[in-house]
Amino acid sequence: MSSTAKVSAALRSRISRKSMLDKVCHPQDLLPHFPNGTYMGWSGFTGVGYPKKVPAFLADHVEQNNLQGKLKYSLFVGASSGADTENRWAELNMIERRSPHQVGKAISKGINNGNINFFDKHLSMFPTDLAYGFYTKDRPNNKLDVAIVEATEILEDGSIVPGASVGATPELLQMADKVIIEVNTSIPSFNGLHDITMTDLPPNRKPYLIMGVEDRIGTHSIPLDPEKVIGVVESDSPDATTSNAPADDNSAAVAGHLIDFLEHEVRHGRLPKNLLPLQSGIGNVANAIIGGLNESQFRNLKVWTEVIQDTFLDLFDSGRLDFATATSIRFSPEAFKRFYDNWDKYEDRLLLRSQAVSNSPEIIRRLGVIGMNTPVEVDIYAHANSTCVMGSRMLNGIGGSADFLRNAKYSIMHTPSTRPSKTDPHGLSCIVPMCTHVDQTEHDLDVIVTENGLADVRGLSPRERARVIIDKCAHDVYKPILTDYYNKAEFECLRKGWGHEPHLLWQSFDMHKALNEEGSMRKIKKW
Amino acid sequence: MSSTAKVSAALRSRISRKSMLDKVCHPQDLLPHFPNGTYMGWSGFTGVGYPKKVPAFLADHVEQNNLQGKLKYSLFVGASSGADTENRWAELNMIERRSPHQVGKAISKGINNGNINFFDKHLSMFPTDLAYGFYTKDRPNNKLDVAIVEATEILEDGSIVPGASVGATPELLQMADKVIIEVNTSIPSFNGLHDITMTDLPPNRKPYLIMGVEDRIGTHSIPLDPEKVIGVVESDSPDATTSNAPADDNSAAVAGHLIDFLEHEVRHGRLPKNLLPLQSGIGNVANAIIGGLNESQFRNLKVWTEVIQDTFLDLFDSGRLDFATATSIRFSPEAFKRFYDNWDKYEDRLLLRSQAVSNSPEIIRRLGVIGMNTPVEVDIYAHANSTCVMGSRMLNGIGGSADFLRNAKYSIMHTPSTRPSKTDPHGLSCIVPMCTHVDQTEHDLDVIVTENGLADVRGLSPRERARVIIDKCAHDVYKPILTDYYNKAEFECLRKGWGHEPHLLWQSFDMHKALNEEGSMRKIKKW
Repeated sequence: MSSTAKVSAALRSRISRKSMLDKVCHPQDLLPHFPNGTYMGWSGFTGVGYPKKVPAFLADHVEQNNLQGKLKYSLFVGASSGADTENRWAELNMIERRSPHQVGKAISKGINNGNINFFDKHLSMFPTDLAYGFYTKDRPNNKLDVAIVEATEILEDGSIVPGASVGATPELLQMADKVIIEVNTSIPSFNGLHDITMTDLPPNRKPYLIMGVEDRIGTHSIPLDPEKVIGVVESDSPDATTSNAPADDNSAAVAGHLIDFLEHEVRHGRLPKNLLPLQSGIGNVANAIIGGLNESQFRNLKVWTEVIQDTFLDLFDSGRLDFATATSIRFSPEAFKRFYDNWDKYEDRLLLRSQAVSNSPEIIRRLGVIGMNTPVEVDIYAHANSTCVMGSRMLNGIGGSADFLRNAKYSIMHTPSTRPSKTDPHGLSCIVPMCTHVDQTEHDLDVIVTENGLADVRGLSPRERARVIIDKCAHDVYKPILTDYYNKAEFECLRKGWGHEPHLLWQSFDMHKALNEEGSMRKIKKW
Repeated sequence: MSSTAKVSAALRSRISRKSMLDKVCHPQDLLPHFPNGTYMGWSGFTGVGYPKKVPAFLADHVEQNNLQGKLKYSLFVGASSGADTENRWAELNMIERRSPHQVGKAISKGINNGNINFFDKHLSMFPTDLAYGFYTKDRPNNKLDVAIVEATEILEDGSIVPGASVGATPELLQMADKVIIEVNTSIPSFNGLHDITMTDLPPNRKPYLIMGVEDRIGTHSIPLDPEKVIGVVESDSPDATTSNAPADDNSAAVAGHLIDFLEHEVRHGRLPKNLLPLQSGIGNVANAIIGGLNESQFRNLKVWTEVIQDTFLDLFDSGRLDFATATSIRFSPEAFKRFYDNWDKYEDRLLLRSQAVSNSPEIIRRLGVIGMNTPVEVDIYAHANSTCVMGSRMLNGIGGSADFLRNAKYSIMHTPSTRPSKTDPHGLSCIVPMCTHVDQTEHDLDVIVTENGLADVRGLSPRERARVIIDKCAHDVYKPILTDYYNKAEFECLRKGWGHEPHLLWQSFDMHKALNEEGSMRKIKKW
């Protein structure tokens, strides 16, 4: 590598390791490292902390030289990267293989039209399986060719300080032959905000000695063999996040039911007054729940989650939230500004860890996390589909939903009871007879909640669960349809001596068929 | 409680706690503690270590007084109890509610004809959720009324030494208002063979500091508040186990493929020479695998599993197995004799733990366990059904299959490629287009193996998985049928832009329909 780039004062202030200054270069200097078929890892998680310059250069290169479909890469990122990078790569047909989670219209299109091989894995397990060599087992040296990672600082020992996410960066660096560092000088150094642990392999793996959300067990930065580094690039654009949608009435109703439930559990001595660490997913309902907590009587709350979002800042500011830890801070641009402007106020109450730790079953079980997520659909026996519409069309991937829902003390699925189809404002029931794809099993979920009500299914047999889920959660439009399905299934199956979990197996997707063929699930003729 | 029973010399030799001698009684003295509706827990796991005398007395009482359906109980047992107790209870319609796992024709019949409410939970989570009060939340004091537990000794501090299983006994004792101890004098005291930990509640839960299969972190016996004990009963019959079926050719072929795969992983540096701790399920194939290891070149093996079976004794005797730990020793009568006759030879190489520990995701992940289980059916995308035939008829429950398959380093499903129906020796394909019930998701499984071959699906997209599973695992009779399904599904779904995981949703269970209506899955007309 021949260095051709000047080192700006801003960049110099972020690099304490002298030898790294010699490696500063332009993205185009690195092109020879990216032949067709390269296996690569990027830092990044939920659209923050991802590399920007080198991916954008490679996209420009493909575009300008009409190399669409000729330079294709296998791309591994802890979770989703930015729309300006991997989604653009998908548009340019640059992605051969992708794992384990993604967001973006073009990438979803490529996955569903057969162009991209997408492997969808629990976010807690992806970095470990990567470190086992499972995803590079057919490569000559069982390694990734190159990792491109964003840092906000390079320390004197050569270790790097990530930005707003840790994700799978430690393991990507462990598994990469070559490393490119993008130092982002447009955002502050996040030094001090991380707790970094690497992944040891069995039989040498140790417990994660975390007993509380604020516990530190690692280092402030990610260790890195300096001889692996083939280039350092200055990056000057912040993470391209967007603003959140405001909470709607349905979301507020869901949040209300959930807060009532948590208060009920406190009254009966099954939860302490300040609850247990909260995990909440991404999206409208999740935001409304956090907003609802801000109106509640709960104090001294703690958060153990995957992603910290805007509304957590309000919870901090109102004095209700003591501490939050995650693998990513995915703020809107306005909230990032608020965070950077008030760094001193938040820095001692936030900690970012690798996704192997934030999503670790070990810690989620130990802490007794309250896990809350949104599905595509839930069925009357409390299975949930988190990934594939109509059993086939991939949305984003399972993400950390099953890491939390399998292991949380309270495993909660929240969803609107219906969604609109093109022709019917209630064309899709989110409560269905049988999920068309199962990501969370009936053995995992404790509570299902919609704007209509909350079904507490703990300890219930499937026949009991079906009745309570239909009664509490289904929309009025679908209650008679689902009840009819259940009654007929129960009658048929009990008669045959198959009645543990009654189904009309050959008709179980008929509501989906009605949606597909007539535009609404309620157009189903009969069971 | 008025004691009416004499204390035999055998019983006296097993009770060091003086006050417990005063509580020795006959089962009939305890009848008043068992009104209709009693919530109770029993010790026991996979048919060993369960109480025998009191359950048998209650069954006699119901039978002799025609109380069938009038004395019904909610029954919680770590896993299955003995056929002579809970299955007899089911025959006598004495079970209102049952959790989390069972074995027996009458109990399965009761679950599937609507008579028994069965709640089917991961075995690692059942004791914890019990300790949370989730299963007794509608009881006045959030407790079980009574626990009946088998012990092989009562120590001076009042703690009890279990027999051949630990299961959920620690948590059942924690949650019970009253306790009855059956001291079994027909088998040796198992003192020294257990490592007992209790379940703390969050936020006070600690790591399980186990870094190797032989590590001890607890006590030799289960602590117990002596004032809870309302009766001590002498038991004089051993666990009613049966002999194992011999391995057949199919099982041997499966074992062969698996051992080749493990050797391949060792050669490529992804496994140490002595492998990593093995988990194997129950049954014919599992036995054949352990038998196959006995013919292999592997040495210094270790086992971290749920149940230790007969074939492990051969592995010990051949010097291949260094240490085995589980929550239950489920030997045949002959193997129990061999074990008791050679106690000194085995006692330092075996350890029994609670099921919360043996099945703990924390430890299974840390140790990098190699997990192997048998399903009802697997689909072309690597989902597996472990519980419900035709999506509805319950067999035994999910057991620990998902505890291991979600968390193992290698998650392996082994199955014959077909099973016979009444009219066709290959009437059921165990490889199907879509599982009729999903207990293990596509995000969990690494390897599927049948007598035909082994499909290594690590890192593969669903479309790649389908081709390799059909090619390697399906029976020749079903390969063209499944290929035809897949090709049509792929064509249809890619055309619609739904092609991540192609399905013909309305026809996905047509092979099951053919089996149900025409006696064989291969009678399917067309897709």
